[in-house]
Amino acid sequence: MTTTTFRVNGMTCGHCVHAVTTEIGALDGVHDVAVGLPSGVITVVSDQPVDPDDIAAAIVEAGYEVAS
Amino acid sequence: MTTTTFRVNGMTCGHCVHAVTTEIGALDGVHDVAVGLPSGVITVVSDQPVDPDDIAAAIVEAGYEVAS
Repeated sequence: MTTTTFRVNGMTCGHCVHAVTTEIGALDGVHDVAVGLPSGVITVVSDQPVDPDDIAAAIVEAGYEVAS
Repeated sequence: MTTTTFRVNGMTCGHCVHAVTTEIGALDGVHDVAVGLPSGVITVVSDQPVDPDDIAAAIVEAGYEVAS
């Protein structure tokens, strides 16, 4: 099992968190997604390392962007 | 900084996560609260170790219970 972290800005409400969690959770091999508030740190637990591009795309799909 | 984890059952939506995050985040010295879905694992980052009773009370306040 692999744990990867990302940071996303601008998630302040339950809806934001739910949207991001759902999109990332739908990726292959992802078991758990934790969104830290107010830090915006997202921790992804997965079978294999997840392609950062896939995570970034899921975050964009949810309406946010990976923090630079 | 200290990191403590708990597990809560039954949080399935954005509202659930927001309620728990808000209640725990209001405790003294807590900097960040991450709720993992679907695991229900809550990670609390704080200045000092947080009293588990305070966390449990915050979770109950949000309408959930710490998993046994």
